[in-house]
Order: sequence, then C-alpha cells, then structure tokens
Amino acid sequence: MEKLLYTGKAKQMWSTDNPQILRVVYLNQATALNGKKKDKIEGKAVLNNAISTLIFQYLNQVGIPTHYLEQISPTEELVKKVEIIPLEMVTRNIAAGHFASRYGVKEGRSFDQPVEEMYYKSDKLDDPFMNASQAKALGLVTQEELDVMWNLSRQVNFILKRLFAQAKLTLVDFKLEFGRLADGPIVLADEFSPDNCRLWDMETANHMDKDVYRRDLGDLVSVYQEVYRRLQTVLEK
Amino acid sequence: MEKLLYTGKAKQMWSTDNPQILRVVYLNQATALNGKKKDKIEGKAVLNNAISTLIFQYLNQVGIPTHYLEQISPTEELVKKVEIIPLEMVTRNIAAGHFASRYGVKEGRSFDQPVEEMYYKSDKLDDPFMNASQAKALGLVTQEELDVMWNLSRQVNFILKRLFAQAKLTLVDFKLEFGRLADGPIVLADEFSPDNCRLWDMETANHMDKDVYRRDLGDLVSVYQEVYRRLQTVLEK
Repeated sequence: MEKLLYTGKAKQMWSTDNPQILRVVYLNQATALNGKKKDKIEGKAVLNNAISTLIFQYLNQVGIPTHYLEQISPTEELVKKVEIIPLEMVTRNIAAGHFASRYGVKEGRSFDQPVEEMYYKSDKLDDPFMNASQAKALGLVTQEELDVMWNLSRQVNFILKRLFAQAKLTLVDFKLEFGRLADGPIVLADEFSPDNCRLWDMETANHMDKDVYRRDLGDLVSVYQEVYRRLQTVLEK
Repeated sequence: MEKLLYTGKAKQMWSTDNPQILRVVYLNQATALNGKKKDKIEGKAVLNNAISTLIFQYLNQVGIPTHYLEQISPTEELVKKVEIIPLEMVTRNIAAGHFASRYGVKEGRSFDQPVEEMYYKSDKLDDPFMNASQAKALGLVTQEELDVMWNLSRQVNFILKRLFAQAKLTLVDFKLEFGRLADGPIVLADEFSPDNCRLWDMETANHMDKDVYRRDLGDLVSVYQEVYRRLQTVLEK
C-alpha cells in the first residue's frame, strides 16, 4: 500500500513497495514569501519534473551522488529514500533577492568567491538564517557532513554554471538540500529547477526563474518552458 | 583642538592632541531593541567605565591586545585609535535572547561548544546577521583577520568565564568588537560591560546585565553596582 508521507509546498512524497524508494508527485503549485503568496499554475508540475529530471540525470552522469532514480510519468519520479538534513544550502554567484536587500548591495554585483549561506528548514520559525557554529550546536549536522555538503555544492555550482552558460543562462544563485541514505552517505535531494535557483538570460538579462512569479513579471509557464527547451537542446548535443 | 568624532548609543569618541589616541566619554544612556527603547539613566556612565576598565586592564595584563590605555576621569578613558572592523562578534555559552527565540530553543540550554555569530554593524540595515562567506564577499574582512578575531574571542571567553565564575556570575554570552591599529595588528576595542554581555547570578539565576533594562526587571544601576563590587573584590585578591 502506497502511503502519502508528506505534502510540501509544490510536491508530495509517497511510499512505494520498496522501503528504500519513494515516489515524488509534482503539484501545479507556486508559492513565495514562505507560503504567504500561493497560486495554482496549470502546467507547472510537468515542467518542474522535466527540468529537474534533465539536471539530476546530468549530475548523476558526471558523478554527483543524488537521490534521483527515474521519471515514471510527466509529473512523477522515483527517488532513493533519505533522511533530509534540515538545512537549505544556498550558493550565490551574483547578489540578488534577499542578499541584496538585507546587506544593502545592488542586485547584479558579482562575487570573486561564491557566497555560501544556510537556512534552517522550519516553517514554524520562518526558515531562519543559520551559520555552521549554530547548526552544529543544535545537533542538526556534524562538521564532516557540512564539509561534504559544501564540497558537493561547489561541484554542482561548477558543473551547472557551465551547463546553463551553454544554454545562454547565467546561474545567479541556487538552493540545495541534502539527505542521508540509510547506510550513511550524503546525497543531493529535493529538486533542481527554476523554483530554487535564479537564472538570468545572458542576452536580455530577463529573469528566467521563479522571480517571474515572485515579482509578477509575466507568465511563469512560458519561461520555464523556454528554460527546458534550451537545456534539452544543449544536452542533446 | 579636541574634536567630537562620533556619538554612539552610549559613548562619544573625541580626538586628542595625539593622533594615535582617542578619548572616550561614557554617557548616562541606555538603549535596547536597536535604539527603539532609549532612556537616560543617572550613574550608568560611571559604572560602565568602571567595569570596562577593570576588565580591559585585566585582559591587557594577561596578554590580550586591546585598545585600552587608561581611565582619566569617572566617565572618561583614553584608548588607542583603531579602524573599527564593522562586525559584532558574538560568543554564546548558553542559549538566551535572540538565539533562543529565533531557533526555538529554551533559554538556559548550554552548548558543548560555544556558538559563534557575527552581525554587520549597520544602523541603516538594522545590524543584520552575517556569516564569514558574506563578510569576505563584501570586503569587510579577510579570512586571516577572522581567524585572529575568533581566536581572541575564544581566549577572552576562556579568561572571562573564569573571572566571572570567581564573582559567582555565569558568563552566558558576550559581544566583542575589534579594530585595526595604524600599523596593522588587530586589537579588542569598544567596551566590556553588562551592556554587551549576559551575566546570570550563579545562586539566584537573576539577570545581572542589560536584560534588567531590556525586560524591565528592576533597577539597572544597582545591578551594575553589584557586578562592579564583585569584580573588584575578586581582582583585589
């Protein structure tokens, strides 16, 4: 019997017959401002699943350990079961969004070294910013695990900056989540889509990510479709 | 001609005839909530100066480099001129205040390893929480300087936890500021008083610091007087 384990902001997690495998169902949902803004958007689930599948397959191919197994329908995929580490690991190549407003920096300023930030995944506490010292003191993670997570984040940044550049997109920033497999190793989990990264068109500087929805800049579905189309073209080569 | 260089929340900085030396004037002022709560408190300037003098003299004696030179009146001291690094370096031995509320932890939980946090000194931005990666990306500080500052913070914590314990006070947390001397070295600056640390009475668990003012728990002056009296007794031995 498959059981619904968890309903997130834009996905559901279901158990499967295999205790080590879960089924992810993408939902036609967009949220922003920690859930304060929320809308149903027809066609979004298929696109998030399609884009995340392209990227996770690519990361698996080049040797990044991920939870991704296979896509089983336009809105569903199978993933390895992990214990999610409750930290959002953010990497910023260019100042945008919260970073720009919180520190009084102009959006678009690029950094010599990527900025790395963590947020504590807690809806109740509104996902507060957290540093390594705090995460360790609260017993959320060990230094060894943090080292693995940041090393994987840096590899993902290196790999995906290049991939998106081929698709004429600048990878401005992105958020990763990691989980522990039953036997211990840490793998990349969650999804990778324009929901959790910022992509700017290299020619027009247009927003090609969820900022289109957050900032009411236009039609999210056609933007995600364009990202998918460009990635597919690059990856077919 | 002496010139007023800067008026802070509870201190003024004046130039002196010697370009490498500044005069600090303590004010009878208490603020909380980033200046939203503000009161004139008779007798506070003398106590802050007296307590900070005891502590900085003690730190100088045991080899911590500080800006402190000498007390020249009940409300005035001379300090070495430094370029202040715009970061507040917070060390927490026990969860209290913002940490407890932000991360949903009970006030009074002690940590195996002290928690270390930084805040960007910016009234305009409301002193936002900041991590090392961000501070370096914004050019506020180098990794070498951060290493020096955290090493000095850990030494100060070790030394003052013991000193306050002799005075039957638990050093819960504290905030340090550092500055660069003209020839480069980093020294401890600002003040050390119950304005920028939390002290709990070891027997009664009473607040013996600015929380008395922040939380309207009683008379700040008599509490600071008691802290001064105990420190003086311990240091006279």
